[in-house]
Amino acid sequence: MTPSAAAQADTSQTLTRCRELVQPALVEAVERLHPWLAEMAAHSLGWTRTQDGFAPGSQGKGVRQALTVLCAEAAGAPAECAVAGAVTVELVHTFSLVHDDIMDGDETRRQRASTWNAYGVGPAILAGDAMCALAAQNLCDSPAAQGGAAVQHLTHALNDMARGQADDLLHEFRSWMGPDAVRVQEYRLMAERKTGALLGCATGLGAVLAGAPAATVAGLTRAGRHLGVAFQAVDDLLGIWGDPLDTGKPVHNDLRRLKKTYPVLAALASDTLAARQLVGILASGKTLDDAGARQAADLIEEAGGRSATQSEAQQHLDRAHDCLTALDLEPTACDEIRALLPFLIHRRA
Amino acid sequence: MTPSAAAQADTSQTLTRCRELVQPALVEAVERLHPWLAEMAAHSLGWTRTQDGFAPGSQGKGVRQALTVLCAEAAGAPAECAVAGAVTVELVHTFSLVHDDIMDGDETRRQRASTWNAYGVGPAILAGDAMCALAAQNLCDSPAAQGGAAVQHLTHALNDMARGQADDLLHEFRSWMGPDAVRVQEYRLMAERKTGALLGCATGLGAVLAGAPAATVAGLTRAGRHLGVAFQAVDDLLGIWGDPLDTGKPVHNDLRRLKKTYPVLAALASDTLAARQLVGILASGKTLDDAGARQAADLIEEAGGRSATQSEAQQHLDRAHDCLTALDLEPTACDEIRALLPFLIHRRA
Repeated sequence: MTPSAAAQADTSQTLTRCRELVQPALVEAVERLHPWLAEMAAHSLGWTRTQDGFAPGSQGKGVRQALTVLCAEAAGAPAECAVAGAVTVELVHTFSLVHDDIMDGDETRRQRASTWNAYGVGPAILAGDAMCALAAQNLCDSPAAQGGAAVQHLTHALNDMARGQADDLLHEFRSWMGPDAVRVQEYRLMAERKTGALLGCATGLGAVLAGAPAATVAGLTRAGRHLGVAFQAVDDLLGIWGDPLDTGKPVHNDLRRLKKTYPVLAALASDTLAARQLVGILASGKTLDDAGARQAADLIEEAGGRSATQSEAQQHLDRAHDCLTALDLEPTACDEIRALLPFLIHRRA
Repeated sequence: MTPSAAAQADTSQTLTRCRELVQPALVEAVERLHPWLAEMAAHSLGWTRTQDGFAPGSQGKGVRQALTVLCAEAAGAPAECAVAGAVTVELVHTFSLVHDDIMDGDETRRQRASTWNAYGVGPAILAGDAMCALAAQNLCDSPAAQGGAAVQHLTHALNDMARGQADDLLHEFRSWMGPDAVRVQEYRLMAERKTGALLGCATGLGAVLAGAPAATVAGLTRAGRHLGVAFQAVDDLLGIWGDPLDTGKPVHNDLRRLKKTYPVLAALASDTLAARQLVGILASGKTLDDAGARQAADLIEEAGGRSATQSEAQQHLDRAHDCLTALDLEPTACDEIRALLPFLIHRRA
């Protein structure tokens, strides 16, 4: 179900309110970096430099930072206490994109040259390191830090993200079929770590900074992790069937690069003729040309990979809603969170 | 003054005692990583794999971890409370080497292929990120974490390290002479951040974990930062005049690569004929051959760069001792720290 126009307007208001709260603190944090590292961080964030400093521009909708703020409110605290957490989450997100783009050789990001492509690999590694350190420092220095609880929450997420990224890189070397093939369940766990850990950090951190009880922190963290799995499933759909005008990437991009994403793995697991034909195309080991990629996309759809991925996204979205239902949350903020969730899923697809 | 044989024996005992305390916790921490990341971490630490797990091998003397343990003892606490801090410091040190080796293109480290050289740039970036995250998590999870104070101390050091590394990379693009030239004072500040921040983290963290008063934390941190500047000066001497058999690098390695190190900058600042001849050799912009490097080394020495660097190291070592003198420390541990310091300076040179 695509969100209605009225829901879209409300959510747009929520996102704007949160962004206006968080943005000044984010700019201030970035300006604390070494000037050269700040310039690279601003580039990575999609900002431009003006006479007065940095002008945040087309840096995405800010769903992650909004989740941190809303989860603090849902736990009964004022939005202000979550600002440091929201800043930290944006910095960690950007740091991970900068390093992942090097690992994946991605040349563009946010409609501009990726950071390594613009500044070189070495400087981009350092800029990422500095943003990650700043993210942690920013949280430690916050008066709402709850002793070490907030940064502890962050470090667990950072470790999970590294674990997920490791599995993602290793999946590349696994077979398409047979006992060594990547199973759908393994892929889901990878996605929960690689993508879910940060969204779970965003939601849980709001609760931690609000001084919420452990059960609320755990429930909101779980909701965020389910969102992450749903988000990754949608990302996988866009990587095959997304409009290049929306994604900024070539059509069938993930297929050309032979990425083992959810739709492919679900199709291969289907025991259909289409699945067996698909293996024939993928297992050649060569990157696919236009015709090969189109044929593979059709076979994945025929083998049920596209609908299985849509259903995976919906299921994890539902489970995120269930997590919210199970908690005793402040109703207005909780409604705002619920209204936000479809926007993570119905992205330009 | 080179340490006497008796002092060497005592210090060797101190280092062994600290290593035996810290090592099992360090192995346990590394084993908490994703297996592939743990393998890369072990490689970076100079460990080998055995049937039972990892066997720590020729991974250096362990001066940093010893400083953390000894500073906790000097602040009146049992050594055990500092173990998590010592583990964290070793992990941060290794993370920074792994990323710096990529930035500098260094192909060997600890008598083996550097991590990017053995596993690829992408995996090495991830292994570094994971070690850094583990370092912070390990500290947060320690019962001695003092609320968020320990990890706050760490994050300030991480940010300073990034700032120092940024300046070091940028110095490469500066001129040898004229208004844009790197001044000795700038270099010292860079070294204090790049190298001193981690040593100050090692010493200060011992005090934080011991629950020492702020003045003790600040004093021991300052001592560590002076040690870092001294350490870097010695490193610079070794980079030009060190024996390749000891350093594992070609003779005159830093000169061949036209690195702007302390001896060079001090020589250039000397307003001597040798300094002017040195500029002629360096400013060509080409990496130096054997004869050019030897000639440059001789001119640096003639212009007083070598003795100025020795004096820089000694001065900062003295100031580290002064920092210790100004504090009310437990005498036995303080003596052990003092005995350790010359070993940072009189390294295989």
